[in-house]
Amino acid sequence: MNAKQRYKLTIEYVGTGISGWQYQTNALSIQQIIEEAIFKFSKEQVIIYCAGRTDAGVHAIAQVAHLDLEKTFEPRSIMRAINHFVRPHKISIKDCQIVRSDFHARFDAKARHYMYKIINRLANVAIDYERAWWIPQPLDIKNMQEAAQHLIGYHDFTSFRAKYCQARSPLKTLSRIDITYKGEEIYFDLSAPSFLYHMVRNIVGSLVLVGRGKWQPIDIKNVLQSRNRSAAGTTAPAYGLYFTGVEY
Amino acid sequence: MNAKQRYKLTIEYVGTGISGWQYQTNALSIQQIIEEAIFKFSKEQVIIYCAGRTDAGVHAIAQVAHLDLEKTFEPRSIMRAINHFVRPHKISIKDCQIVRSDFHARFDAKARHYMYKIINRLANVAIDYERAWWIPQPLDIKNMQEAAQHLIGYHDFTSFRAKYCQARSPLKTLSRIDITYKGEEIYFDLSAPSFLYHMVRNIVGSLVLVGRGKWQPIDIKNVLQSRNRSAAGTTAPAYGLYFTGVEY
Repeated sequence: MNAKQRYKLTIEYVGTGISGWQYQTNALSIQQIIEEAIFKFSKEQVIIYCAGRTDAGVHAIAQVAHLDLEKTFEPRSIMRAINHFVRPHKISIKDCQIVRSDFHARFDAKARHYMYKIINRLANVAIDYERAWWIPQPLDIKNMQEAAQHLIGYHDFTSFRAKYCQARSPLKTLSRIDITYKGEEIYFDLSAPSFLYHMVRNIVGSLVLVGRGKWQPIDIKNVLQSRNRSAAGTTAPAYGLYFTGVEY
Repeated sequence: MNAKQRYKLTIEYVGTGISGWQYQTNALSIQQIIEEAIFKFSKEQVIIYCAGRTDAGVHAIAQVAHLDLEKTFEPRSIMRAINHFVRPHKISIKDCQIVRSDFHARFDAKARHYMYKIINRLANVAIDYERAWWIPQPLDIKNMQEAAQHLIGYHDFTSFRAKYCQARSPLKTLSRIDITYKGEEIYFDLSAPSFLYHMVRNIVGSLVLVGRGKWQPIDIKNVLQSRNRSAAGTTAPAYGLYFTGVEY
C-alpha cells in the first residue's frame, strides 16, 4: 500500500488564452499546465481535482484543487516548485496545505463564490481588456439590484442553465447576489453551494437587460418561473468572470 | 491661415510591450499608435503632446494629451475613431474635449498624479502580472508611511533623480505621498506639480528598503539630504507604475 499524502492547493490564474480548467487532448488547460509542473519537480504523474471547472477565458482568484503525492514534500516547497514550473503562464499557487486523505476539493465544497466584473463607460477598456465585460450603454444599478433579489433562494434555475450542463438537477440554492459599484466598475458577487453550467454568466446576461432598461426587475422573476433557457438573456462573456473562493 | 481646432484627450493604456509614450524610430510607442490612428480617420499627420511621457511598461489611467486638426470633427467622433483604429493595442481614449488654442497638455499642467502598486505575498502574481511589483518579503507599511513624510514638500530630489533626467533643476515640490493597503495590495499615491525622471520609481524603491527593515524611516531623510543618487535605493520596476491623472 502506498502512504500517499494529500495536498490542497489555492490557485490564482488568468484564463485568457487558456482553454479552461479541464484537461483536453487538443488544447492547453490550467489542469495540464499544473500537472506538468508537478511532474517536473516530483516525477509523479498526478491528476488534480478542482472545486469548479472554469471555462476558457474565465479567471480565478482562489480556485481550490487537491492532489496526492507519494514522495514527501513540504507544502511550501510544492507551492514554490509549481510556481516555478508553470512559468510563463499566469498561474500562481497562493497556498498549499496538507489535508486528510479523504478531502475532496469538489465534493466537500460547501459554498462557491464567483465575481463578475463589468466596466460601464462610453470608451472601450484598456487596463481591463479581457478582464471585464465592457458595456457602453448606461446601466441602472438599482434596477439590477432589485431584479437580483428574485433569484435568491432555492429555485429551478433551468432558465439560466446552459444546454450542455451535466448536473442531475436544475434545482439550486443561490445564497447571495450582491451588486456593487465603484465609479465605472460594477461587481456582481454570487455565492451558492454549487452552480449550474454557465449559471453565473446567464444570470449576469439577463440582469444587464434589466440594467439597460429592456426588461423590468420583475421580468427576472417571470424568466426564472418560465424554466425556459430561451426566455433568459444571452450569456455574459467568459472574460468578466472570476472564481473567487470555496468554503469547506 | 488655418483655423485649426485644438482637442484634449484623456487616455488609458497598458504599457506592457510598448516602448513608452514617446515616438522612437526603432520601437513602437503609444504616441505613434495614436498618431497613426488619427491619420487613419482624418488623413492629417499630427503630433500629439502629452502631460507626462511614461517609460516602457508604465501604464496610464488618465494620461492627457492635446492635438490640432484642420478638419472639423465632433469630439465624440474623434474618441470613437481613435479607439477603433488603435486596436488591438490596449489603449483607450476615455474623453475628448475641445479646448482653447493655447492649451498645452504639458506646460499647463498644475498637478500630476501617479500610483504605484505592489503585491506583497509569498506566492508570485498571476492576475497582476506586469501590472504590479511582486515583493515576497514582508513589508512594514507603518514604517514606509513614516518614512514617506520626510519627502513631502519642496526639496532637492537629486537622490531620487535618474541619470538621464533632462529637468533644469532637481528642486521639486512633492505635495502628497499616501501609502494605503487592501489585503496584500499596497498602493503609493504621489502628487506633485511635476516630477523628475524616474522620481516616483526611485522613491518607491527606497521606501521598500524601509518596508523590508533594511533602512529606518529616518534614513529616507538622510538620503534626501545627501543629494546623491547612489545613496538611494534601486529603481522600482516600471510595470507597477500608473499615471493616474493631471490637473489644469
